[in-house]
Amino acid sequence: MTEKPHDPWLLTPGPLTTSASVKSAMLHDWGSRDAAFIAATARVRARLVDLANARDTHTCVPIQGSGTFAVEAALGTLTRPDRTTLVAVNGAYGKRMAEILRRIGRPCRTLDVPESEPVSARAVGEALAADEAIEHVAVVHCETTTGLLNPIMEIASVVAAANRRLVIDAMSSFGAIHVDARDLRFEALMASSNKCLEGVPGIGFVLARLDSLDASRGRAHSVALDLHEQWKGLEANGQWRFTPPTHVLMALDRAIDEHAAEGGVAGRGARYRENCRVLVEGMRALGFRTFLPDTLQAPIIVTFFRPSDPRFEFEKFYDGLRRRGYVIYPGKLTQADTFRMGCIGRIGAGEMRGALAAVREVLSELGVASAGP
Amino acid sequence: MTEKPHDPWLLTPGPLTTSASVKSAMLHDWGSRDAAFIAATARVRARLVDLANARDTHTCVPIQGSGTFAVEAALGTLTRPDRTTLVAVNGAYGKRMAEILRRIGRPCRTLDVPESEPVSARAVGEALAADEAIEHVAVVHCETTTGLLNPIMEIASVVAAANRRLVIDAMSSFGAIHVDARDLRFEALMASSNKCLEGVPGIGFVLARLDSLDASRGRAHSVALDLHEQWKGLEANGQWRFTPPTHVLMALDRAIDEHAAEGGVAGRGARYRENCRVLVEGMRALGFRTFLPDTLQAPIIVTFFRPSDPRFEFEKFYDGLRRRGYVIYPGKLTQADTFRMGCIGRIGAGEMRGALAAVREVLSELGVASAGP
Repeated sequence: MTEKPHDPWLLTPGPLTTSASVKSAMLHDWGSRDAAFIAATARVRARLVDLANARDTHTCVPIQGSGTFAVEAALGTLTRPDRTTLVAVNGAYGKRMAEILRRIGRPCRTLDVPESEPVSARAVGEALAADEAIEHVAVVHCETTTGLLNPIMEIASVVAAANRRLVIDAMSSFGAIHVDARDLRFEALMASSNKCLEGVPGIGFVLARLDSLDASRGRAHSVALDLHEQWKGLEANGQWRFTPPTHVLMALDRAIDEHAAEGGVAGRGARYRENCRVLVEGMRALGFRTFLPDTLQAPIIVTFFRPSDPRFEFEKFYDGLRRRGYVIYPGKLTQADTFRMGCIGRIGAGEMRGALAAVREVLSELGVASAGP
Repeated sequence: MTEKPHDPWLLTPGPLTTSASVKSAMLHDWGSRDAAFIAATARVRARLVDLANARDTHTCVPIQGSGTFAVEAALGTLTRPDRTTLVAVNGAYGKRMAEILRRIGRPCRTLDVPESEPVSARAVGEALAADEAIEHVAVVHCETTTGLLNPIMEIASVVAAANRRLVIDAMSSFGAIHVDARDLRFEALMASSNKCLEGVPGIGFVLARLDSLDASRGRAHSVALDLHEQWKGLEANGQWRFTPPTHVLMALDRAIDEHAAEGGVAGRGARYRENCRVLVEGMRALGFRTFLPDTLQAPIIVTFFRPSDPRFEFEKFYDGLRRRGYVIYPGKLTQADTFRMGCIGRIGAGEMRGALAAVREVLSELGVASAGP
């Protein structure tokens, strides 16, 4: 990477390191009803739909807030009070979808899977066969809790075969791992501005099937998170219903330019896979063990077991890396003592090697002899 | 104003023109769980509470999204399903609060007032006396629909005397018009990053009474917009529950520095009052008529009647001003043909005079002889 900001490199699941060019797109002010901003909103929406080859079937509805706001907007607008949603849960983000459905009073069942295992398409199929009240299936593509990639193609096939509707939380995968609406049937896919698209945080969005969105009028549990009305507003005059985060949108517009220049999903994904390879190989060489086997690992974020050496204290490890210019992330597992390092954002193999060198130094500083769990 | 960006001046109710310094605060990336960002969040929260002298009674809970997200979060978290909220409606923003309450299933009555008239404290008192089921009163401080300032002190007195709870939408007034929690009892006050505080859009916030917030656990209709949980999360570890718009927060932190440097609410309000005076005098000199009498006009945004001269076409007027570097706003009234010009944001009397010169030129270009309605 040629850019070298003085900010620490963010090896996290987001907010991430963004390019100087993306940030400098925020050095202007725009009227939210002015033609230039309306054009940028339309451009962003169209290009996000195109990233999933979904132009014939879906539309992109952006929503103010974090990715969770988009998840809640999609679930609250598309599910129905008298039908059940099956939520596959193998981490915190699956759990969150179930929590949202329960809070907003929509029937929900969970398919509970250990955090270390992928959701099984066969188990989804069995659950659908056993309960006719299920209309939607909700699944997380890359579970950021662990970094695990769920087999979305197989799950989508089973859901389509059972004539049910699939909702995908693709927060941490969209833009780096292919999802093609022509091969994979989904009703809604949720993601955000600040993960693999490398924009800044502040906008979530939903790629929603046009027919479903059209049929969902008046169903949402919320005014602010009503995806149908948000869509209708955008279609009516190109404007957001409520004040949009104008600077965040313009940064996302720039970020999508850079995504395209890198070769789109293929190019972005290739860089992240290389980042992940360098990170995992290097950490293993230092003695660390990954929580997941390589076959389940998405090239997004990697969970490592904490070393069992009592001289390893996570806060000191974090601070040592932070002082060297690398921000990592605590673990989020219920069952194992871990920490996480991300492979995404405007970082490359050079930064991953820099992080590895910093890890080596900090281990030595702490007097940790073995990084094994 | 010494700064002279090339962007058009935004004479709107927001997003507004911000300073170069506020925008340049966004030229970095922050980890949302890193100490520097946690400190900035705490600093912003504390200073927003202090702006209302509410440190002993209230806390500030920021929420991702636009101001409406904060309004919905406050209403959904603080009102109860078995008690009624009286919403005073003399414009679109009062109407929106009633719409939110109805959508989320909370009982609601409206006190309907013409758009050209302030909400009467006496009428509020009568409505409270007539219905014991009313627990909350919701009112807009400055109705951005017209620019009208509601008599919030008088209304607060009546609500307090009746032992009910006041919720204030202070979106377009907070930071420029004094609200002092020691003199004016309120349960919640909602505002946003991008109006009189002159930050960029993307964060709403609620100043909420600590005792009320503490008692509201489990009441919210939404996970994303649960103000109680958002508060508990911030108090637990200083972190936002869901990914915060980091750049927007850092811009707000900088904007609050500049607000303090200008003399706080008094200084900011004085500049806006002067902007408003220059604008109104100048527009009247050109023949325009204001929708409101001066006694009801807040120094935030001014509604003007459209000239009746058939050569006046709003789109051409807008475009002519836009070409000269000034963005104005359409009207939002149900009853009269109007347009609006804002007095807020990083603009001063010089920009208002520039706008007036542009208006004069465009009228002449359009061949409008009289700007009277």
